[in-house]
Amino acid sequence: MITFLPQNIEYDIKGEKTILQAAAAAGVNIDGNCAGAGVCGKCKIRIIDGPIPEPADHHFQLTEDEIASGYRLACCTMAEDGMVIEMPESETTASRKKKLVKLPEWFSSEPRTVKRYITVDKADIACQKADVTRIEEKLGDKVIGVSFDAMKKIPCALGQGADITVTIQNGEIIDVESGDTSKDCYGVAVDIGTTTVVVMLWNLSTGEMVGINAATNPQGTYGADVISRINFANSEEGNLQIVHGVIIDAINRYAEELCSENGIRIDSIYEYAVVGNTTMSHIFLGVDPSQLAFSPFTPVFTDGTVCKASQLKLEGNCCASVYLSANIAGHIGSDITAGIITTDIMDKKGGHLFIDIGTNGEIVLSGNGRACACSTAAGPAFEGSSIRQGMRAARGAIERVDITDEGVIIKTIGDTTPIGICGSGIIDAVGELIRTGIVNKSGKLLSPERLRSKGISEEVLKHIRTTDKVNDFVLYESPDGKSDVLITQKDIREVQLAKAAISAGISIMMKELGLTEETLEKVSIAGAFGSYIRNSSAMDMGLLPRVPEERIYSLGNSAGIGASMMLLSEKTVVDSEAAAKDIQHIELASRSDFQDAYMLAMSF
Amino acid sequence: MITFLPQNIEYDIKGEKTILQAAAAAGVNIDGNCAGAGVCGKCKIRIIDGPIPEPADHHFQLTEDEIASGYRLACCTMAEDGMVIEMPESETTASRKKKLVKLPEWFSSEPRTVKRYITVDKADIACQKADVTRIEEKLGDKVIGVSFDAMKKIPCALGQGADITVTIQNGEIIDVESGDTSKDCYGVAVDIGTTTVVVMLWNLSTGEMVGINAATNPQGTYGADVISRINFANSEEGNLQIVHGVIIDAINRYAEELCSENGIRIDSIYEYAVVGNTTMSHIFLGVDPSQLAFSPFTPVFTDGTVCKASQLKLEGNCCASVYLSANIAGHIGSDITAGIITTDIMDKKGGHLFIDIGTNGEIVLSGNGRACACSTAAGPAFEGSSIRQGMRAARGAIERVDITDEGVIIKTIGDTTPIGICGSGIIDAVGELIRTGIVNKSGKLLSPERLRSKGISEEVLKHIRTTDKVNDFVLYESPDGKSDVLITQKDIREVQLAKAAISAGISIMMKELGLTEETLEKVSIAGAFGSYIRNSSAMDMGLLPRVPEERIYSLGNSAGIGASMMLLSEKTVVDSEAAAKDIQHIELASRSDFQDAYMLAMSF
Repeated sequence: MITFLPQNIEYDIKGEKTILQAAAAAGVNIDGNCAGAGVCGKCKIRIIDGPIPEPADHHFQLTEDEIASGYRLACCTMAEDGMVIEMPESETTASRKKKLVKLPEWFSSEPRTVKRYITVDKADIACQKADVTRIEEKLGDKVIGVSFDAMKKIPCALGQGADITVTIQNGEIIDVESGDTSKDCYGVAVDIGTTTVVVMLWNLSTGEMVGINAATNPQGTYGADVISRINFANSEEGNLQIVHGVIIDAINRYAEELCSENGIRIDSIYEYAVVGNTTMSHIFLGVDPSQLAFSPFTPVFTDGTVCKASQLKLEGNCCASVYLSANIAGHIGSDITAGIITTDIMDKKGGHLFIDIGTNGEIVLSGNGRACACSTAAGPAFEGSSIRQGMRAARGAIERVDITDEGVIIKTIGDTTPIGICGSGIIDAVGELIRTGIVNKSGKLLSPERLRSKGISEEVLKHIRTTDKVNDFVLYESPDGKSDVLITQKDIREVQLAKAAISAGISIMMKELGLTEETLEKVSIAGAFGSYIRNSSAMDMGLLPRVPEERIYSLGNSAGIGASMMLLSEKTVVDSEAAAKDIQHIELASRSDFQDAYMLAMSF
Repeated sequence: MITFLPQNIEYDIKGEKTILQAAAAAGVNIDGNCAGAGVCGKCKIRIIDGPIPEPADHHFQLTEDEIASGYRLACCTMAEDGMVIEMPESETTASRKKKLVKLPEWFSSEPRTVKRYITVDKADIACQKADVTRIEEKLGDKVIGVSFDAMKKIPCALGQGADITVTIQNGEIIDVESGDTSKDCYGVAVDIGTTTVVVMLWNLSTGEMVGINAATNPQGTYGADVISRINFANSEEGNLQIVHGVIIDAINRYAEELCSENGIRIDSIYEYAVVGNTTMSHIFLGVDPSQLAFSPFTPVFTDGTVCKASQLKLEGNCCASVYLSANIAGHIGSDITAGIITTDIMDKKGGHLFIDIGTNGEIVLSGNGRACACSTAAGPAFEGSSIRQGMRAARGAIERVDITDEGVIIKTIGDTTPIGICGSGIIDAVGELIRTGIVNKSGKLLSPERLRSKGISEEVLKHIRTTDKVNDFVLYESPDGKSDVLITQKDIREVQLAKAAISAGISIMMKELGLTEETLEKVSIAGAFGSYIRNSSAMDMGLLPRVPEERIYSLGNSAGIGASMMLLSEKTVVDSEAAAKDIQHIELASRSDFQDAYMLAMSF
């Protein structure tokens, strides 16, 4: 048994597991960006009781003081019976507040699953019609049959009286209950991000959201990005089943929590609608994703897929169905399909750019009657993990930076002492460094001498720290100097590569559709990213095309919104599948003009 | 461990079980007509080694000699570790030879499941289409998706080369295999009789039968007839699961045997088509059949039902589907639906009588543009179990009786020493006794004195044995007098009641449709019964209407033939469901004229 504090979650260790793996299995979030390589140092925890193993070789990420105080990297330390482990504060406080999802004004719900409360006539010797026949006659409208599981429930439900509630999904009777349960009709929308899983519980009969749960994708234990997870899944027999299993378990746990918090029976969940990138989609179904790791990056499937929740061991009614949304291509998944159906991008009228920035930057562009999409290998810079002090958007993360003559003003999530920088903070910091000229077009953080000559104030210059002729920028100087937060020259290079990839992708697509910055009428930014970045900073660093700010729309968790819409409306499903087929996939690697565009985009 | 001889089948006893229950679980057939009540004496076995328990109270069915030699009733004796049990010879030799099923000349197969061997184009960077998309394009025709299980097989199958075999069922891809397996496409037709289960293995791609297995329904352990099985299923939590489980296990065992005998992989079974009476249908699905035991005998369902083999734990491909044929009413099951679709009865032109005689006599009659059906409670007389020396049609059963002036000529199955009488023998014996006047119209077996005065020869008269003024008829006199086979006066009364029920049903239906014996153009007799009875004897005793012999058609195992046709053709399924809905069910119990008809039919 090991114990995770402050949540006080206890876990029985079975087999050999690192603390990181044990935490994932116990449902405790720990960031694990390098997936056990021991190089990112993000998974720092403290062992406060029980056996404290010697630090592994990889522990150069920890100071001597930390090692002496029981700090270890969770990914490099084996879990042992009796350990009491304290999680870092940033992992245990809700990141940013989870907001209920808001559906577009124009959207109207027409769920596939409906419940009908009916009174069934009794059989008698003059009318010996079967129970099913009498139920179907009462329903009046076209019912195309009774599911195997529902059939078995009929004798018991009808035995308790003539008043029953019938659940009909796509015309089939899938549940029969005694009494009136017509209001207990729920569905779950799931957005499986590489980093974060969002589970949303909806009341299908009212079209209202009941609750939302978001947490780190526990697959992170087995690889920070999709490629390393594919490699893990592929490296040993049974590994695919492991990464498949942990995501199913996580969805079940989050759905069960939402149900129990809201007094809802888990078997009144009748549907799931799931979105995720193509790799997440494959692993979710348990389909081998290996082909996605190497050229030509062929997915096994792209079409929307329907199966039973029970086939995936997802909790819910025994007849609950699962709809996995259509992917667009090997590296443009159904999270993008879900995102675009929250917009009018498929009207293909004015130039409309949809961009989702994560480890991959996925871009959809429409205009002049066409729509196309590409995926760019942006790397994890904007998610923080290739940035020295990058972290997820949790308490203590610097999320905003302003550089003025008076100095540097930072803002952290939770308005507390800074412990790192999250994605929006990185963009803001780099944007400001470029705007002020501290970083030049070629990405070099200039020396204090050069900057003094360009008139940068001493208040700002004292933030530059020079080591071996390399200049870093101190965002926060701690009282004892041990917990400073810096943007390093190397960080800036990482950001530069990432922004170049995305920017080059955008320019290739604009060329393809014959669009310019002037004819771009809308820029829709998906994800939390869009909600928190400062658009001007993103434009300053060249990540977004330079358009008037009012043309930029932040979509919020568009993948989650789109998944919810698919859960609530068959029309949305049909539209989304049509969109996924209609969008032309542009493989940048096969374009002769991509390298030029990439080099050009390298400059800030 | 207990051992059944001569098959030498070993079985580990788990929990408390009678020898009869242990035999059923081990897949060893023992007749169990009274389901453990200890009254029919049919389940006699001999314990030749290991513990030999004292005989139970019920053992009045055994002689002192038998008890001393280790004979016991399997239903009243608990199985104990170490027992070696010898089965009676009649149980261990094939009854009558199992014939391959022959489908009607006019039938043409058009299976729902087809296999296609195709070469799939490789993906490349210029054409990154998903595996599924490239497969679907190659198939050309309309495919409506890929099953969840098939999806998971694609990477492995395609990984081994571009040549794959795709299995398509009702337009959905349900299996993908590497190489050419297009000939490995099998289906199983099952006829679940109350007494006997018939499992038929078909090659779906050639429309040819591979093999057939028939054996005692192991549910017999829990009740000889449907009512006692319903009562068992209803008497305790978990019992429904037991009777459901044993039939599923039996079908699996028989199907596996057929596969292994013919070198067929079990996962190349893609379909099941199942028929059975309404109670068997309910239990097969695991649906509570209790309502069928009391008025108004309402079934839970009558329509045809589709589910996955895996939902029922039936062996086969993981995507194998099960079609359970449509029932007509509470006591007119899908075995009748299957039977009638092998005939042209639903043309409803000339008078056409379809009759299936078992514990229930099910009758379908068409003519004058209508079709109707009824079920009569014939009782088990024609199946032998209410007849003192009745037995199933196994080695040693008297199957034919001729009474001439020279004496009585009997024929047994296997041309061996008689040990009992099977259904066709009973009808033949009673028919002959009536034809010769030994039994009079009122069903009384007359005294030798009366018969001598009517001119019956002495050779025949010496077969009559009189005890306490009751006359029985000896069919076979054994050398030591201990193993005689008799038809008793009580047996004749049993037959009389059974024939009256069926005959009354026929006359009510003929009246309903305005038909007479003269306008009856066809009499179709279902089941083995029809194949072996002598039509003249059946007419002599009044079981069948008196029509010219050439109008009588013996259909053989029409339920099995119909099930096979449903397996091989969707059109047959559609026709059968239409027929089941179209046939008007006549509930004899609700007819005011039934009692009169029954009394009238009582006379021979």
